[in-house]
Amino acid sequence: MRIDIITCLPKLLESPFNDSILKRAQNKGLVEVVVHDLRDYSEDKHKKVDDYAFGGGAGMVLMIEPIAKCIRELKDQRVYDEIIYMSPDGENFSQGIANELSLKKNILILCGHYKGVDERVRENFITREISIGDYVLSGGELAAAVVSDAIIRLLPGVLGDETSALSDSFQDGLVAPPVYTRPAEFEGLKVPDVLLSGHQKKIEDWRFEQSVKRTQLRRPTDSK
Amino acid sequence: MRIDIITCLPKLLESPFNDSILKRAQNKGLVEVVVHDLRDYSEDKHKKVDDYAFGGGAGMVLMIEPIAKCIRELKDQRVYDEIIYMSPDGENFSQGIANELSLKKNILILCGHYKGVDERVRENFITREISIGDYVLSGGELAAAVVSDAIIRLLPGVLGDETSALSDSFQDGLVAPPVYTRPAEFEGLKVPDVLLSGHQKKIEDWRFEQSVKRTQLRRPTDSK
Repeated sequence: MRIDIITCLPKLLESPFNDSILKRAQNKGLVEVVVHDLRDYSEDKHKKVDDYAFGGGAGMVLMIEPIAKCIRELKDQRVYDEIIYMSPDGENFSQGIANELSLKKNILILCGHYKGVDERVRENFITREISIGDYVLSGGELAAAVVSDAIIRLLPGVLGDETSALSDSFQDGLVAPPVYTRPAEFEGLKVPDVLLSGHQKKIEDWRFEQSVKRTQLRRPTDSK
Repeated sequence: MRIDIITCLPKLLESPFNDSILKRAQNKGLVEVVVHDLRDYSEDKHKKVDDYAFGGGAGMVLMIEPIAKCIRELKDQRVYDEIIYMSPDGENFSQGIANELSLKKNILILCGHYKGVDERVRENFITREISIGDYVLSGGELAAAVVSDAIIRLLPGVLGDETSALSDSFQDGLVAPPVYTRPAEFEGLKVPDVLLSGHQKKIEDWRFEQSVKRTQLRRPTDSK
């Protein structure tokens, strides 16, 4: 799988992809993440990529010209399954969408910044708009990193144990049960006896019961 | 405002706080972000901070001991308004929570990683559990960066124009209207005439109408 990310602030994306699981996935050749600096596509001598909004008001808007140039160059090189724009008013990202996108071959993600991108970009170059939640960020960079992380960890071979992602929250419509590790007792706080019992069937029953309870409590609309 | 973040992978958080708005906010002294490496609080000679889950199953769990030590040391130094654990099954983060947290003085955020943290940490040290959305990430680091970004940009003086954040999506229960910038025409694609009219009242009416329409279309449950 290949993920291309277009941003006017490529530095923001350096560390999330250069450590831990996302780095290992790239080193193993399971995913290629390529970050493109929008300023490289500016025709302006100052490498300007944004300007004031028509009609006035606070905040800068990313211009259509460099974005169009960048997307066209990338589309000339390969076919993209989706060209995604990260936007607070996009479709709400979910584990289901992460699963769906993890099956794609090439994904292109455009990050807005400041007040966003010129609407003509959204209408003419974007195939899908995704929001990571109902809140506003400085830009789409962290959102693109979140979406990439959620997708990449689902790719076969990325997590050490293939079954690990399957037991995560939301994969079966339930949130995950509580987890415990050593020590069995910490300042009087004990691990539930069943987890130390060695009785695998009882452990599984307890985990399922805890998952159901917790889902009803924390995500009541999902558990109906 | 001060935000402390506890993580077993501090490198992941380097670039998001070292550029753009978040960096400028720190340089201006409007916020202090301090990242703590959980491994510095491990008593183990290999700086181990995680172990297998009791009861078996894939994925590692962060141990209570180094986390308890780290949180206690920080609490000895200042009073925290909230000690937040980033978790997929936490309370769903929203612009309202961002507004609320932006008024606090000291916030401590604990990032899980792998399968999460020992449940006894959540029960005994955490005041609030927050999820940035219904999907699973490799760890809480990107989620902590998202929450910090959403909060920090709301602090007075962080955005260049004080009114900028107020016109963002969700601040008035509506998503933002479309934005346009130069050129007024790109390959036949034109900016709506009203935005070029110079008639401020008509522009405001058009933006409000567009916001309402878009909210009804994209966030129907918010627009009721």
